[in-house]
Amino acid sequence: MGDPAGSGPEIVLKALMKRCLLSRANFVLVGDMGVFRRSAKTVGARGFRFAEIDEPVAATGEPEAVGVIDLRNVDSSELVHGKPSALGGRAAYDCIVKAVDYAMHGYVHAVVTAPISKESLNMAGYDYPGHTELLAELTDARKVKMMLVARHFRIVHVTTHVSMKEAINLVRKARVLESLELTDESLKDIFGIEKPRVAVAGLNPHAGESGIFGDEEVKEITPAILEAKGKGMNVLGPYPPDTVFYRAYHNKEFDAVVAMYHDQGHIAMKMVGLLEGVNVTLGLPIIRVSPDHGTVWGKAGKGSADESATVEAMKLAIELANRKYKLRV
Amino acid sequence: MGDPAGSGPEIVLKALMKRCLLSRANFVLVGDMGVFRRSAKTVGARGFRFAEIDEPVAATGEPEAVGVIDLRNVDSSELVHGKPSALGGRAAYDCIVKAVDYAMHGYVHAVVTAPISKESLNMAGYDYPGHTELLAELTDARKVKMMLVARHFRIVHVTTHVSMKEAINLVRKARVLESLELTDESLKDIFGIEKPRVAVAGLNPHAGESGIFGDEEVKEITPAILEAKGKGMNVLGPYPPDTVFYRAYHNKEFDAVVAMYHDQGHIAMKMVGLLEGVNVTLGLPIIRVSPDHGTVWGKAGKGSADESATVEAMKLAIELANRKYKLRV
Repeated sequence: MGDPAGSGPEIVLKALMKRCLLSRANFVLVGDMGVFRRSAKTVGARGFRFAEIDEPVAATGEPEAVGVIDLRNVDSSELVHGKPSALGGRAAYDCIVKAVDYAMHGYVHAVVTAPISKESLNMAGYDYPGHTELLAELTDARKVKMMLVARHFRIVHVTTHVSMKEAINLVRKARVLESLELTDESLKDIFGIEKPRVAVAGLNPHAGESGIFGDEEVKEITPAILEAKGKGMNVLGPYPPDTVFYRAYHNKEFDAVVAMYHDQGHIAMKMVGLLEGVNVTLGLPIIRVSPDHGTVWGKAGKGSADESATVEAMKLAIELANRKYKLRV
Repeated sequence: MGDPAGSGPEIVLKALMKRCLLSRANFVLVGDMGVFRRSAKTVGARGFRFAEIDEPVAATGEPEAVGVIDLRNVDSSELVHGKPSALGGRAAYDCIVKAVDYAMHGYVHAVVTAPISKESLNMAGYDYPGHTELLAELTDARKVKMMLVARHFRIVHVTTHVSMKEAINLVRKARVLESLELTDESLKDIFGIEKPRVAVAGLNPHAGESGIFGDEEVKEITPAILEAKGKGMNVLGPYPPDTVFYRAYHNKEFDAVVAMYHDQGHIAMKMVGLLEGVNVTLGLPIIRVSPDHGTVWGKAGKGSADESATVEAMKLAIELANRKYKLRV
């Protein structure tokens, strides 16, 4: 469900209104039935019916009645759309815990999460910067990381939501190596690529030109690449940041690019029109996919938030689950 | 001509072999006749004829005989393709001085420069990091800056060929303001846009989110924007770096984007396939355009370097000269 005060429930329903999705998987909504019913009205999903179920196994998979695990955790009279709240944070948290629990026990094959708010979580007393850290804790995962995915174009960031100053300080051999290992491992395990080609972007312009424009490539990135190669990984670079993403996306030279900071990857992804970014969490024992955007507070309650990223997230979750569990190949 | 040991003379001739260019302007080549003749053979420009002229005014504009100001400054027997040399640096320097002199005296309407090598320049005893500084000195310009241009997509960088660490330290109010002023001024003067819309990218992810991910937006960039606005400029931002370039290129919301560091603008430009980047120098009293790439040492003497950027540079020079001098509108 995501934060009920945000656009999450609405974009989930807008996405599910696409017949092509409902016919390809058995969806189970985890959240508050009242919120889903209200959201259905908001987004104009007239023909949409919900069936309250107790366990995921009870979901029939019929498009006419989407199964809902009703957590009854949102008092509609108290819900105010468009801003963070303890109510929203608590409800969003409950949904994640429940969905992850189902996935960990094998009751569902994958989890797609809707946007939550860090502020709401904090107001509810949960101190997590975002989904990733919470998911890691719930699944006992030691090393986790997000991968931004659009078909064959996959990007893993060594650093994300920190200042550029801090990002530079975090570009250290151990951290880069960890990103390389998680990327290589996940391309094999989650995406089924036997011998993944992983490109590494430099930090500095022209990847530093042998130390003329910064020494992080020489001191940190290249040593990490060499160590990864020593472990048998097919890791390439560091490449000039302004062409490596082009090569991955347009020329399909690599199966993933490891970017050093948030905007390297995000500028590249968005410039080619892939605004509907999708994240896959690497390092978890479960499949988890999410749209790469926030609660869209400004459109919450109006049904006008764009569901494209959620549609893509659902499609990818289906694809990855089918592969992992050999459901349909 | 550019550095005669590089691909410059070859890509210039390959560009001029395009009929559409020769018919739209009266080109004058400045360089060594021997180099041009040899390069013509290399690139297979069989029908290409040169006419030695003493002054640009003597160029007939006939595609059958392109005017050459022969500086006789390259001893072909000493020229070695594919690497920096004092010979190459000296010859390249002479060409620039001559061409700029013509432009300053109104003998030509614009200058297109071919790639030079900083190393060659240094070996010849000229201590400039690149074209820009040399051009500034030759034209007595106080503040100069490059603008990366691809049709309506224009980017000015506050910092370029420095490490990311240094780039962050250079993102200071005065420097940002200077970039905003030069951009605004040039969009009016060079591009003829009456009320330019200039977008400013933040430095940090999400433009810092009010200081959560870095304070350069709050302390340096926003104050510069406010001052520019106070001076009557239509400057907008700071915007999240990962969407501002998309908005400028795909939605045409802005006439230019001011980027904080090299890869912000270069990733954006290259991702949409604009590998054939073109630079316009802002702040000069003359029109100067150049391809946004180096000498392509590896292909020099082989005729295989890509002339696309030079073609684009020539087209843009013609367009800008026509506008400035009201030659054909």
